[in-house]
Amino acid sequence: MFRTAELGQKVSKTEYHQRAPLLRQALLEAQANLRVNSRFPVIILFAGVDGGGKGDTVNLLNEWMDPRWLMTRAYDKPSDEERDRPEYWRFWRDLPPKGHIGLFLSSWYSHPILRRVYEKDKEATFDDRLDRILAFEKALADDGALILKFWMHLNHDAQKRRLKKLEKDPLTSWRVTQQDWDHWHIYDRFEAAAERTIMRTSTGTAPWTIVEGVDPCFRSLTVGEIVLDEITKHLDETDKKALLLEELAAKRKSHMTEPQQPEDEAMAGADASTIPRLKGATVLSCLDMALKLKKSYYKKRLKECQARLNKLHRKALKKRISTILLFEGPDAAGKGGAIRRITAALDARHYQVIPMAAPTDEERAHHYLWRFWRHLSRAGRINIFDRSWYGRVLVERIERFASEDEWKRAYAEINELEEQLTDHGILVLKYWVHVTKDEQLERFKAREETPHKRWKLTEEDWRNRDKWDDYELAVNDIVEHTSTHTAPWVLVEGNNKRFARIKVINTFCDRLEAMLEGNK
Amino acid sequence: MFRTAELGQKVSKTEYHQRAPLLRQALLEAQANLRVNSRFPVIILFAGVDGGGKGDTVNLLNEWMDPRWLMTRAYDKPSDEERDRPEYWRFWRDLPPKGHIGLFLSSWYSHPILRRVYEKDKEATFDDRLDRILAFEKALADDGALILKFWMHLNHDAQKRRLKKLEKDPLTSWRVTQQDWDHWHIYDRFEAAAERTIMRTSTGTAPWTIVEGVDPCFRSLTVGEIVLDEITKHLDETDKKALLLEELAAKRKSHMTEPQQPEDEAMAGADASTIPRLKGATVLSCLDMALKLKKSYYKKRLKECQARLNKLHRKALKKRISTILLFEGPDAAGKGGAIRRITAALDARHYQVIPMAAPTDEERAHHYLWRFWRHLSRAGRINIFDRSWYGRVLVERIERFASEDEWKRAYAEINELEEQLTDHGILVLKYWVHVTKDEQLERFKAREETPHKRWKLTEEDWRNRDKWDDYELAVNDIVEHTSTHTAPWVLVEGNNKRFARIKVINTFCDRLEAMLEGNK
Repeated sequence: MFRTAELGQKVSKTEYHQRAPLLRQALLEAQANLRVNSRFPVIILFAGVDGGGKGDTVNLLNEWMDPRWLMTRAYDKPSDEERDRPEYWRFWRDLPPKGHIGLFLSSWYSHPILRRVYEKDKEATFDDRLDRILAFEKALADDGALILKFWMHLNHDAQKRRLKKLEKDPLTSWRVTQQDWDHWHIYDRFEAAAERTIMRTSTGTAPWTIVEGVDPCFRSLTVGEIVLDEITKHLDETDKKALLLEELAAKRKSHMTEPQQPEDEAMAGADASTIPRLKGATVLSCLDMALKLKKSYYKKRLKECQARLNKLHRKALKKRISTILLFEGPDAAGKGGAIRRITAALDARHYQVIPMAAPTDEERAHHYLWRFWRHLSRAGRINIFDRSWYGRVLVERIERFASEDEWKRAYAEINELEEQLTDHGILVLKYWVHVTKDEQLERFKAREETPHKRWKLTEEDWRNRDKWDDYELAVNDIVEHTSTHTAPWVLVEGNNKRFARIKVINTFCDRLEAMLEGNK
Repeated sequence: MFRTAELGQKVSKTEYHQRAPLLRQALLEAQANLRVNSRFPVIILFAGVDGGGKGDTVNLLNEWMDPRWLMTRAYDKPSDEERDRPEYWRFWRDLPPKGHIGLFLSSWYSHPILRRVYEKDKEATFDDRLDRILAFEKALADDGALILKFWMHLNHDAQKRRLKKLEKDPLTSWRVTQQDWDHWHIYDRFEAAAERTIMRTSTGTAPWTIVEGVDPCFRSLTVGEIVLDEITKHLDETDKKALLLEELAAKRKSHMTEPQQPEDEAMAGADASTIPRLKGATVLSCLDMALKLKKSYYKKRLKECQARLNKLHRKALKKRISTILLFEGPDAAGKGGAIRRITAALDARHYQVIPMAAPTDEERAHHYLWRFWRHLSRAGRINIFDRSWYGRVLVERIERFASEDEWKRAYAEINELEEQLTDHGILVLKYWVHVTKDEQLERFKAREETPHKRWKLTEEDWRNRDKWDDYELAVNDIVEHTSTHTAPWVLVEGNNKRFARIKVINTFCDRLEAMLEGNK
């Protein structure tokens, strides 16, 4: 989940100084637009790792924007006044009115997360607290509020470096407390609680964005641009809705029957705040695609791995532990080859490879997840899906077979599905087997030239290449939203098929072994 | 919550035999319409008290409708095939495809409720299971499914009578098992679990309807009519949506700019299935409005009650137990008088009466619940709201200040708010002080004639009388959705002011005493 925020994203000082003034100008304009009619409040939360730049970012937004319509809130231990009332009293009191922006440091998330990290709450109680948050945010969003939530992320090492650096500088050393170090020592527990929080509370109307917190220039521009985009979008949508309602009311009143003017021009409305956006790295662009294995080494290693897999799976069968493997990736990335290297090590009675073709009529008459439920095997078996339910947030998203609403809510649906699988004790592993665009071209050409492989290449494969960048962004979103501790994505550098196959089998063996030993 | 289903609703055999054939015909038509284009599946769940008529109703629907597009499912203990997979596997497999209707007896709700009733699950775990249900139903509803959930209710005595009757008849005695009697003995626990289930899982897209299960004719017609109405409505909405999408797509393709024809006629579309509907009783129509107290008795009783209240509140103050009282009711029902009889017994430093006037500008710039949060007093105090957050589902619903979406989701928002209050240890009591329409007229006339009371009567009061029936239905919905064990509605027969005042103070004292003694 946090992998997308560990890519070493950076923006140079020069670029920052070019972009910041433009962004600042646009944010002020957006803020002024927000004041017109004061249609809704904006609620922006910051959470995340200590040292991830929450405070700095809030300070910067205060500097950039008009302070008259901006309020910042942070919460310490509740006062006795506050303890006398229900927990959310202080949050309700501090909500920004319509037309205003509220920045929340340490909001309604702090208390639940800390209680979970310090193991004062069990998981079920923690979930109850997250439910309360969901209901609270839903009520606000239903009322029209724009809610943005930023999780400022640093990995364990980066956090250490950051805290050390702050400590060294006499100007900032006061900011590092013993508590910060205490938290650093229980980073794992903190990350687990964070992952559950984000998974459960990232909704269509109040989504989390995970921001890499290492480079101040990068994180400032990223947060600023998202705030700008979302305010602009929400203003636009709210205006359209208001317009529609007014029209409808007018129509009702006057019982007009004259045909309406088409609204297209009015709706399109050019936007003054369109400034060039930061183009960041993605999880795929950061893969080391030069990784490879020599043929002789590979042959030996493959045999060892397959033997290990065979042994492990016989144990799993005895313990009735099932596995579900998903394979996704560009055309000709080598998914099929990798799958065959796995199945070669197994007894055919114990696994099932399920290639996802277009849905049948019967499948089309059901929810899109129905066809995957059908295929679940009995305890101890292995299900290998060649393409999977992630089609919803890949091809269906990109080809617009699914609406934005549909694919956006699919992350939560998929997380819920996979949680049911892992809760049942099933090992779930998700592979993205990747190739570069150039390597894919080579393989396509080779297929055209080899008669027995020619059938594999279709017109569609060529068309998909045009959407390469869209796929790359979609994969980044998938990893951000659905890579969890219990059902992680494994990104496989696939330009060298030998390397890819060994990595696939090896990670499978490692996870299966850990599960058999009860380490996970 | 279940009070609305304990009104002794009945339909005579004659009326039943007039209505049933029409309903049956209309249901068959609706089913045929559902087959056209097969746009969505219909999922109908039955749950509730044993003997409440779940099975009979499902049998009847099978008899009434076309069995080719209807499937019935019931679940026993999971088979070994089923135990090998996650819990929801069997439900996913059994979902009806688009164009079909699935009737579910003992569905995904049975297992969680029984585990809670038998105390195998703590409340937090129970809530987690309900969350899973919510996610499941949301995924299906988002995909277009129509989900209807019926809770067939019998109170403790009615259930006993029903089970006895079934046992006596040799034809039905087999249907009563030891388990049914076991459940009858833990009725209270069953009701508590049911209440939480309904409160947490009654959503806009998958609502529960509580049906009084005593009279077979009444419950059959009620369920049948709701099924008919909801299928018709959902077909209509889905068709409109599809039409809109098609138009939009066509527009995009052809870049048409000619003005569109107004759709009003097409949208209105006369509906063949409009048959006369059953008019049931409401909680208000079942009140005994003749209840009264003699003046001499009242005077003595009032003093005793006020002394008791004073003593109890001093204890509550010491224990820092707060109270929130809400008063709702028709104009001139005597809310103010009842409130004054309470406050007369208290120290002015310890209570606060909050009359709900029209919201201020500042309040209008916030969520509608914000203004109530503002007024919460410190621990140990009493807040008396003269009209309250229920305005959202009363006047705002009826005067259409709130949209249907807004007031329908308000039940959940209000339940969440009140749960936060009671979780914090606050005593919450909600009074509906009622008068009959005739009595109100008498009081209006008296006000007109008394100079110092004339100001109390406005044009609006007269207008509200025209909407008497709407208010009565709205109150019935409120009691059904928001009367919980921890924050109940007290319906006060207010034609006799003396009776009403004593009932108000008495119930307050009883609840406060129970709370102080930790009985609640």
